[in-house]
Amino acid sequence: MTRNLRVAGAQLGPIQRADTRAQTLERLITLLERAAGDGAELVVFPELAFTTFFPRWWMAEDDPELIGCYERAMPNPQVQALFDKAKALSVGFYVGYAELTPEGKRFNSAITVGPDGRILGKYRKIHLPGSKEFRPQQQYQQLEKRYFEYGDLGFPAFRGPKNWNAPVLGMLICNDRRWPEGWRVLGLQGVELMLIGYNSAAYDPNGGGAEDLNIRTFHSTLAVQANAYMNATWAVSVAKAGVEDGSGLIGGSCIVDPNGMVVAQAKTLGDELILADVDFDACRQGKEKMFNFAAHRRPQWYGRIVEQVGVVAPE
Amino acid sequence: MTRNLRVAGAQLGPIQRADTRAQTLERLITLLERAAGDGAELVVFPELAFTTFFPRWWMAEDDPELIGCYERAMPNPQVQALFDKAKALSVGFYVGYAELTPEGKRFNSAITVGPDGRILGKYRKIHLPGSKEFRPQQQYQQLEKRYFEYGDLGFPAFRGPKNWNAPVLGMLICNDRRWPEGWRVLGLQGVELMLIGYNSAAYDPNGGGAEDLNIRTFHSTLAVQANAYMNATWAVSVAKAGVEDGSGLIGGSCIVDPNGMVVAQAKTLGDELILADVDFDACRQGKEKMFNFAAHRRPQWYGRIVEQVGVVAPE
Repeated sequence: MTRNLRVAGAQLGPIQRADTRAQTLERLITLLERAAGDGAELVVFPELAFTTFFPRWWMAEDDPELIGCYERAMPNPQVQALFDKAKALSVGFYVGYAELTPEGKRFNSAITVGPDGRILGKYRKIHLPGSKEFRPQQQYQQLEKRYFEYGDLGFPAFRGPKNWNAPVLGMLICNDRRWPEGWRVLGLQGVELMLIGYNSAAYDPNGGGAEDLNIRTFHSTLAVQANAYMNATWAVSVAKAGVEDGSGLIGGSCIVDPNGMVVAQAKTLGDELILADVDFDACRQGKEKMFNFAAHRRPQWYGRIVEQVGVVAPE
Repeated sequence: MTRNLRVAGAQLGPIQRADTRAQTLERLITLLERAAGDGAELVVFPELAFTTFFPRWWMAEDDPELIGCYERAMPNPQVQALFDKAKALSVGFYVGYAELTPEGKRFNSAITVGPDGRILGKYRKIHLPGSKEFRPQQQYQQLEKRYFEYGDLGFPAFRGPKNWNAPVLGMLICNDRRWPEGWRVLGLQGVELMLIGYNSAAYDPNGGGAEDLNIRTFHSTLAVQANAYMNATWAVSVAKAGVEDGSGLIGGSCIVDPNGMVVAQAKTLGDELILADVDFDACRQGKEKMFNFAAHRRPQWYGRIVEQVGVVAPE
């Protein structure tokens, strides 16, 4: 008996600032329908999938355009059509969105919805990059620390439904995928499939510098490959890609197996589906042997990971 | 002003069980001399560089052959010639060895020796793979947990000398390189150059299975690339390679930059030098921006990493 699930990554091309919510939702629904047609049972959309990557823009906190980027509930009328279509097709999905709570808190969040429309898990991004402040010396801004609070839900793993073969699922958002701590906290809950959406800037499409498109895509894939391997889990990591109002985003959406091998990868910077048949039992060799945590980990020597935040260098 | 150091990885081909210590030492000295001739200031040798990988053999604890594999002090007469040659050439080195303490404790250890012959740092391997017990159902044994105690020195970073531009150095041994915890504990000490030696089995040179030579080499390189990137450090990772008494070991020794890029890699499974000019200031971009730990880490959510050893799965 194998424990299979057909999963899709639904990479989105750019969403311009002037695009309407209805236009964007239609693109998500089109990708969902195509994925369902290919037999996918779970579709992974990017981080902040309903809007442009607005943290690149400085806006007043009460700017109506900014407020309009947040969801006050999930689902809600402006995204309901996606939920309805997914339920009708019995397809689950992961989607990232900007969350505004009834208490006025703002988070960079993601949910995973089951094939019956039920929300299976929720995550609020913990590793927020960028700054709170406008940085006049920088050509491009990254203001996630201004527009979001740090996630306050930890890294909770959760079970998928029985008709998905009850896998242990985990979620990360964008920059989280570069931080082995989040992967390991989910690895310690036995994660078998990591769901990730991202918007990662590549300001220098041809330059060969540190923010070059190819180097940033290499980093994105490398981090997912190695952390999937070191935690013996599958991973689906999905971009919003292309040029949004003059600012570049990498593509490179990928599905990675528990050996760290890329089994599917997007080739464009536009709306594109990638697909793989995931066998959860393929995690067992790693979890039982090389990465048998109970047999090999030595937490008494890991104290600095929780006892200090920044670097303390030797003299 | 740049902070450069020319480093070499001195991959060793196989050391057969019947090879004498004098034969092996001569090979290390030859590689050291060649590296010095190429201008290297620091040479990295593999794990257990003075002997065959003896943990593949079941031996009685008082077997003279086993006892002869351990060093009772470092240096000692049977390795002194390497220390003398390195000091004469003003070249430092990392070398792995089996340690037997005056109290009778046994460790899988490594030291880094400065260009003046002084021992700069010492490390005892924490992530011991394999088993304590003979496993009759397995074709090959991996008995490190029998022949060594778990390292008891933590992961201490240390400074190289001023004529190396005072880099923060860290050491790992073999299987440690697959465990992001050790890298992060050293990353939190600001490591700029990670020194690693390994003996990694590849039992299946052509088979395409999980212990296939190519897959195991891919894993070895992947783990070093990603962990170097995620800690914004250089890394030199060096194999004992080839077929020792019928058991295969991977090669793939590599030097990796703080972007996770391989800048040099061994092509053979024999004695082979790899070389790179390391610029420690190339770590700064990663340490100050993407991996600015003080700005971005959230240890309050990393508790499981130290609070539990094995997996605790959701219901």
